[in-house]
Amino acid sequence: MTEKTMQEIISFCKRKGFVYPSSLIYGGMANSWDLGPMGTELVENIKRAWWDRFVRGRSDMVGVKTALIMNPSVWKASGHLDGFSDPLVECKKCHTRHRADHLVSESEWKELESKLEGVEDKEKFMRENLPACPGCGESDFTAPRDFNLMFKTYVGPVENEDSVAYLRPETAQGMFVNFQNVLTSSRKNIPFGIAQIGKAFRNEITPKNYIFRSREFEQMEIEYFIEKPKEDKDWQEHFDYWRKEMWEWIDFLGIKRENVEENDIPEIELAHYSKKTIDFEYRYPFGVKELYGLAYRTDFDLRNHEKESGENMKYRDPKTGEEYWPHVIEPTFGVERTLLAVIVEAYEKEELEEGDSRVVLRLPFALSPVKVAVMPLMKNKEELVGKAKEIQEKLLPSFTCDYDETGSIGKRYRRQDEVGTPLCVTVDFDTLEDDTVTIRERDSMKQVRVKVDELKEKVEEVIEKGSL
Amino acid sequence: MTEKTMQEIISFCKRKGFVYPSSLIYGGMANSWDLGPMGTELVENIKRAWWDRFVRGRSDMVGVKTALIMNPSVWKASGHLDGFSDPLVECKKCHTRHRADHLVSESEWKELESKLEGVEDKEKFMRENLPACPGCGESDFTAPRDFNLMFKTYVGPVENEDSVAYLRPETAQGMFVNFQNVLTSSRKNIPFGIAQIGKAFRNEITPKNYIFRSREFEQMEIEYFIEKPKEDKDWQEHFDYWRKEMWEWIDFLGIKRENVEENDIPEIELAHYSKKTIDFEYRYPFGVKELYGLAYRTDFDLRNHEKESGENMKYRDPKTGEEYWPHVIEPTFGVERTLLAVIVEAYEKEELEEGDSRVVLRLPFALSPVKVAVMPLMKNKEELVGKAKEIQEKLLPSFTCDYDETGSIGKRYRRQDEVGTPLCVTVDFDTLEDDTVTIRERDSMKQVRVKVDELKEKVEEVIEKGSL
Repeated sequence: MTEKTMQEIISFCKRKGFVYPSSLIYGGMANSWDLGPMGTELVENIKRAWWDRFVRGRSDMVGVKTALIMNPSVWKASGHLDGFSDPLVECKKCHTRHRADHLVSESEWKELESKLEGVEDKEKFMRENLPACPGCGESDFTAPRDFNLMFKTYVGPVENEDSVAYLRPETAQGMFVNFQNVLTSSRKNIPFGIAQIGKAFRNEITPKNYIFRSREFEQMEIEYFIEKPKEDKDWQEHFDYWRKEMWEWIDFLGIKRENVEENDIPEIELAHYSKKTIDFEYRYPFGVKELYGLAYRTDFDLRNHEKESGENMKYRDPKTGEEYWPHVIEPTFGVERTLLAVIVEAYEKEELEEGDSRVVLRLPFALSPVKVAVMPLMKNKEELVGKAKEIQEKLLPSFTCDYDETGSIGKRYRRQDEVGTPLCVTVDFDTLEDDTVTIRERDSMKQVRVKVDELKEKVEEVIEKGSL
Repeated sequence: MTEKTMQEIISFCKRKGFVYPSSLIYGGMANSWDLGPMGTELVENIKRAWWDRFVRGRSDMVGVKTALIMNPSVWKASGHLDGFSDPLVECKKCHTRHRADHLVSESEWKELESKLEGVEDKEKFMRENLPACPGCGESDFTAPRDFNLMFKTYVGPVENEDSVAYLRPETAQGMFVNFQNVLTSSRKNIPFGIAQIGKAFRNEITPKNYIFRSREFEQMEIEYFIEKPKEDKDWQEHFDYWRKEMWEWIDFLGIKRENVEENDIPEIELAHYSKKTIDFEYRYPFGVKELYGLAYRTDFDLRNHEKESGENMKYRDPKTGEEYWPHVIEPTFGVERTLLAVIVEAYEKEELEEGDSRVVLRLPFALSPVKVAVMPLMKNKEELVGKAKEIQEKLLPSFTCDYDETGSIGKRYRRQDEVGTPLCVTVDFDTLEDDTVTIRERDSMKQVRVKVDELKEKVEEVIEKGSL
């Protein structure tokens, strides 16, 4: 298999309608992306599968959908107002802006940062310790300033300190602030989780790597509340359980385990709320980078919300009557990172016999945007076209079903292979005689003849089984 | 049936986990709302059904998911930067702010507004023509100023004119700016539609009526592109088709047609882009108000985007080669307004025999957040509890399935009736003997005995049929 380049993936995604640059007719919008028809269906399938698996399919999980603009006090308690910032330096020569902790490695930066406070001439210190500016090759930076990553806006007709608000930088706080509401109305007992799928926003200084790091993104996230641990193994057991669950989800996506690495985040790099974090890193074309995260957040959030709001955020054990802040295990799944990993993994240029080749998107059938494509052998034969459209209408209530009449059958098969369609159904002259059609499977390219009456069941069976 | 009050609905929604006030532990956030576990599942069912019906189930529709923060030029072309504002007046006595067009009727305001430009002393004119301030009863207002309803933010580390951006006030423009992208990658021919479900934001001066008008909301929207009409009946046919489709969707939601009125918006009140709009208005407890809208947008948007961007936004007829801007029929469905109408419609206090009564949420079974609840007759009998949990685990992969062991069976039935659960399954001592359970239906309260082996199929059948 030849290496896949990002350029190739980006161009493929645009051409086939997975991902478009946002506001493209206006020259785009700073690393912002829209999902086209194929990307929308693929993401919809990913999200539904995640929700059915982790929320609907479990007796210990409930879902919420919380506001994107929350009361600013939430971000005080969570630590985002004070601590959610990147060290921003500006090159004094070419005036480009950079994250100091990206110019060096994260741990190198932590070390520099710890020394910085005592330094008199901070610019000189930067000059001596940061590498050359990626913009101009010089090394002359301003002293770093903390740039808060939350998007700011104003609610109501007056713009002042009282009306300032932020777009949420994570979905997690929506679950924490509703902890008591959910307890009361769902009557769950610990351990149980609250899940949410939704948008979050980070005003990144340098968004990059396509949809991997953009300012607007979607998270699928679980806050799993556990008993206050007496010893480390109490939370470690839950942590390991979720680690296993995450690996199984990765399997489900069709991502090979050999392309994912666990990265146990060193203590010095842990977020302020976390006592342990594992990143699941995927081998993207631009490097091995975070796909998912699993964090042990301790009781940091509930404890702080109680402190900040004055409201009781404790759980009362129904048996012992003991009151405590539950501890939290947090599995986080980025939607766009999933989408990109799934596409990169599935994208394949395959050499066929006799010098032929094809691009095939080997998605798990359950994720394919289009499940079946119906094709009349020729587009200028009314009976074939009519029959094909009739079959499409019959399949549509049960499957996403495309209709394609343009080009040779071979070309149309290739077109469906490219977007990962598991099955093609061809209507030919025999169909008009004996009411059978040819169905052809994406991976094996095997073809069989099926009765139109039995087509729906056959498609169902193949999608379920994952092969013809 | 007794009248339903908003107070009753709001309290019900909070208690049962449909809707919580957002950021409640911090005193809330200006008419902002979170969905609890029940509301999240109900909305998820509504959105999936809408998507399956209008996108996946049709051969003439594709979906997109576009960015919430778009290039600001989009809002120039769409008219939102210049025209999307409300007339804001401030009471000079009590300093409350109001929408002038809400102090009088919309058409009265249009008339006042048309005269206003020529008036010398605008404050006097306001004093003479506006009713008393709802805040203090006086009538002394400032001259109205146009308050733009788009939330403003800044992208990147510098706050200036170049970095200003807006949260989208509607999803529609995401479909328009991607018109050519979608044409290229999906190869659809006119007529066809592009659909999207997603958040939009309006910085309302006075959000009100619970989740009916909040600053953050979600839309399910279709832009349906049709041939350039030669005469009015050409677009009217499509318009009528979609009117019918919307009525059928309303039926599907279980909303009685007698509770919905069509309101043909008078020309003077039409939005700047529309040549005809019909509102579907629901009989909410606070009055008959817009549920859905159906608008004929002409070619306003594509034409303006071509003008503003310089990019070709035309469609080329594959047969005639003619190039033109397609016209657009736009059916819009508010998610929160649907949720509220569905709950209000389904909520019922029912008098039973012998002076008993219950609250029952008569949701269509397909929409119910929980499809089935499993209950052991007694919670202190291990075999019953074990068996009930075993049955729950068996049903969970196929249905949202609750487990409830608290209180008498009658009380547990009532609890499920309240959230609209179609079926309750009771595990009793006979179950341990003959492996049968009692299933009880919400509406008829009828009970039948079913073999555990056949339970899954039975539940499927009842959900499908809508009754036991």
